Amino acid sequence: MKSRIQNASFISKVMPASAAAAQIQPGMTVGMSGFTGSGYPKAVPLELARLIEGAHARGERFAIRVLTGASTAPELDGALAKVGGIDFRLPYQSDPELRARINRGEIEYMDIHLGQVAQYAWFGFLGNIDMAVVEVAGVLPDGRLIPSTSVGNNKTWLDLASRVILEVNSNQPAGLDGMHDIYYGTALPPERKPIPLVAPGDRIGEPYLRVDPAKVVAVVETHAPDRLGRFAAPDEISARIAGHLVEFFRHEIAHGRLRPELLPLQSGVGNIANAVLGGLRDGGFEGLSAFTEVIQDGMLDLIRTDTLRVASATALSLSPEGVDEFQRNIAHYRSRIVLRPQEISNHAELVRRLGCIAINGMVEADIYGNVNSTHVAGTSIINGIGGSGDFARNGFLACFVTPSIAKNGAISCIVPMASHVDHTEHDVTVIVTEQGLADLRGLSPKQRARAVIAQCAHPDYRPLLEDYFERACRESVGKHTPHLLDEALSWHQRFVRSGSMR
Amino acid sequence: MKSRIQNASFISKVMPASAAAAQIQPGMTVGMSGFTGSGYPKAVPLELARLIEGAHARGERFAIRVLTGASTAPELDGALAKVGGIDFRLPYQSDPELRARINRGEIEYMDIHLGQVAQYAWFGFLGNIDMAVVEVAGVLPDGRLIPSTSVGNNKTWLDLASRVILEVNSNQPAGLDGMHDIYYGTALPPERKPIPLVAPGDRIGEPYLRVDPAKVVAVVETHAPDRLGRFAAPDEISARIAGHLVEFFRHEIAHGRLRPELLPLQSGVGNIANAVLGGLRDGGFEGLSAFTEVIQDGMLDLIRTDTLRVASATALSLSPEGVDEFQRNIAHYRSRIVLRPQEISNHAELVRRLGCIAINGMVEADIYGNVNSTHVAGTSIINGIGGSGDFARNGFLACFVTPSIAKNGAISCIVPMASHVDHTEHDVTVIVTEQGLADLRGLSPKQRARAVIAQCAHPDYRPLLEDYFERACRESVGKHTPHLLDEALSWHQRFVRSGSMR
Repeated sequence: MKSRIQNASFISKVMPASAAAAQIQPGMTVGMSGFTGSGYPKAVPLELARLIEGAHARGERFAIRVLTGASTAPELDGALAKVGGIDFRLPYQSDPELRARINRGEIEYMDIHLGQVAQYAWFGFLGNIDMAVVEVAGVLPDGRLIPSTSVGNNKTWLDLASRVILEVNSNQPAGLDGMHDIYYGTALPPERKPIPLVAPGDRIGEPYLRVDPAKVVAVVETHAPDRLGRFAAPDEISARIAGHLVEFFRHEIAHGRLRPELLPLQSGVGNIANAVLGGLRDGGFEGLSAFTEVIQDGMLDLIRTDTLRVASATALSLSPEGVDEFQRNIAHYRSRIVLRPQEISNHAELVRRLGCIAINGMVEADIYGNVNSTHVAGTSIINGIGGSGDFARNGFLACFVTPSIAKNGAISCIVPMASHVDHTEHDVTVIVTEQGLADLRGLSPKQRARAVIAQCAHPDYRPLLEDYFERACRESVGKHTPHLLDEALSWHQRFVRSGSMR
Repeated sequence: MKSRIQNASFISKVMPASAAAAQIQPGMTVGMSGFTGSGYPKAVPLELARLIEGAHARGERFAIRVLTGASTAPELDGALAKVGGIDFRLPYQSDPELRARINRGEIEYMDIHLGQVAQYAWFGFLGNIDMAVVEVAGVLPDGRLIPSTSVGNNKTWLDLASRVILEVNSNQPAGLDGMHDIYYGTALPPERKPIPLVAPGDRIGEPYLRVDPAKVVAVVETHAPDRLGRFAAPDEISARIAGHLVEFFRHEIAHGRLRPELLPLQSGVGNIANAVLGGLRDGGFEGLSAFTEVIQDGMLDLIRTDTLRVASATALSLSPEGVDEFQRNIAHYRSRIVLRPQEISNHAELVRRLGCIAINGMVEADIYGNVNSTHVAGTSIINGIGGSGDFARNGFLACFVTPSIAKNGAISCIVPMASHVDHTEHDVTVIVTEQGLADLRGLSPKQRARAVIAQCAHPDYRPLLEDYFERACRESVGKHTPHLLDEALSWHQRFVRSGSMR
């Protein structure tokens, strides 16, 4: 097998992961690759965790600030969190160990729009980036880098970091070469120009990442897969949610507000998203496109069957079976998939121009259409807002989906007042549960409340919500957004006290 | 004086306002001109109010849906609200009579981002627009229209409405001719192209509005000024807020994160905004630019003294003295001011590209940086979100300003939990009161809370906020965003009960 490192200067910097990790100092801000469990460095963070553990055993303080694309994997967030090696983290996480420490107050976590991380770094709002640790799929003879399964913020980390550690992962499909589109036309205001992308499949950049070789302090060879689980088959709840959305799209087509090929789809990660995609395929939709963050197994299936004409994303987040399928039909997928920096995949300008149909999961919605995407009972973070805000604010439709209840009915996902607001009443156009779909477009708060309660609430909670809303309409001081302040958060208080909102 | 109506077909449709108003039927959706009290129709709404009053006296139902650019004036919102002639209103209002009826639950009001109204209408989300009632400053021989003091959503109403009533107001400055830039390049997705604007002063369209003459059912001649009050001289509180912001900008320039000419400024309406502009002028800033919604007296002053090189907006909202000054130096102002449709002045793509510095007032912020721009104690609407979200989400900086207390100290504008969220923790970068400035960039929720309490809270409320935060950090289930759910809204509950948060 041909080496993945084809440049002599980079070969000369090959070293064991432990030696590379030793270049990371306490207090450093480290920009790492990784987006939704793909393309994260597999070796250096583990070795770094060992060094940190050793330092702590000797009574030394050792923690770093970790910036990524999005979520990573146990080998990165999990390993570093477990040894107390992270004291600040952004912009997204989903690791159980890391989450637990954030919610115990041990790690500071900043939860920001994935599409804004790169510009925040360029603006200087995140301080200096001392080190980049980036997985790539190969190094070309001229020193350019073949990106891995995710692009994320890698361009920004490579450009801004004072020093760079590369992990070259020979386990990543060689067929990735040429699939990426790295746009080097971004700038700081007032030098910014229009981004010349007008369709999801447009290529506006180049297939490779650039890095100043003088900044590369270590190259580490790895051969390990992204650690991604399988998806469960869609359950009945997901299928019903998907059914409501598909019916809604048909209705919009019938009324001339959508074309049969819809508009570019953005869908969050998980079973409901996969069910929606499956529902579109089974419903006979054709010629669809996606302008989204992540391509999962479900989307591969749609590309294979030509339901999905083209898909743009920043990460390829596939199960082991998905990777096999991807490798088998690589030529077909290469012609239909474009992987971009998340700054571009989630860019406000492009999401607005393309008119994306945003479909994202949530924790809860309140009767007025405010959506909580991140917090349990207002205080414990789950993952983060991710790209949902990038797409919901600027897209054509902002659909939020959830089962109407959670924890066997102990939680209603429709509540009087959201315990944390990530998407405001001004941004949410469609709410869907397995009970039904509330179309909030053009409605006032009270009109929205009636729709959300009638269409989306679980029958066990619907009478309670109706009662709250009716009393609020009578007793609230202000009747634009009627609330009973004494009761507005009482469902969450009850849940915290007793484990149930009932 | 030459007639303002130079087209024979339009002259033939001149009629009294009462005859024009008679063409508006119950239940119609009417798109009207008007933005921040300027450029609204002066005659037809008043006559319509009389017709509605008559119908009600006869026991007939008569109300309409009113869509505008933003706020209007007593002659429109006030008159129609007073007779119960509005049953649905969007996207913004500030009229006392209208507000009172909304908060009594008599009128449904939808409060949406000003930059999204036009596309929502084009998408079909607001239903059919039955009638447009638009004030213009004149009609050209070829039937094109000279826009008035505000552009707002007029292009969209004229394009989409089934029928059109024009008010030609000969009191508006003739010098407005040529000052506008109406962009006719917008489209529905998937046909959208990049908007070719790269600097605040760029002209990308044409100076006139188009209308299909066949749709024009009435032309009404008026001669009346926009009814705009004077601004109070900046008070000490506003001056101190402005001082903190100017100091912050200097700090950012010193650290290389801003250029001496800053980035295009967006500032809300009112005394604090004027004080900030005055502070920049007095602080020796030069070569500034504005990409904003409204040009007020304070901005004229900066343009006159060349502190402000260029200003883009959708409305010219001037006091009588401001209008005099504008007329006196019209040639200078014409070279520095561009008036655009609000779809463009507030466009996500452009706000992001230009990197606007957004400075907007608010009702309250909570310790974690969530901002309430619209509601008193969570239930009564004040005005609306306006363009604050368009700019805060997509700009370079999202600054929110307020005095630290209101109603002689009965209200703290920094609270444990916002009673309504219009701008989330993910979007707010700077909070300023007369007490100081909290720079929230790159901070976790708890880090933000410490900054907001220490820098922005009034000394009378600071110990209470410290106490809440400390106890929340100890007792909250989740310690990412610590809250005591039983107490989170207690300050608002106390205010509703006793008239004071103390």
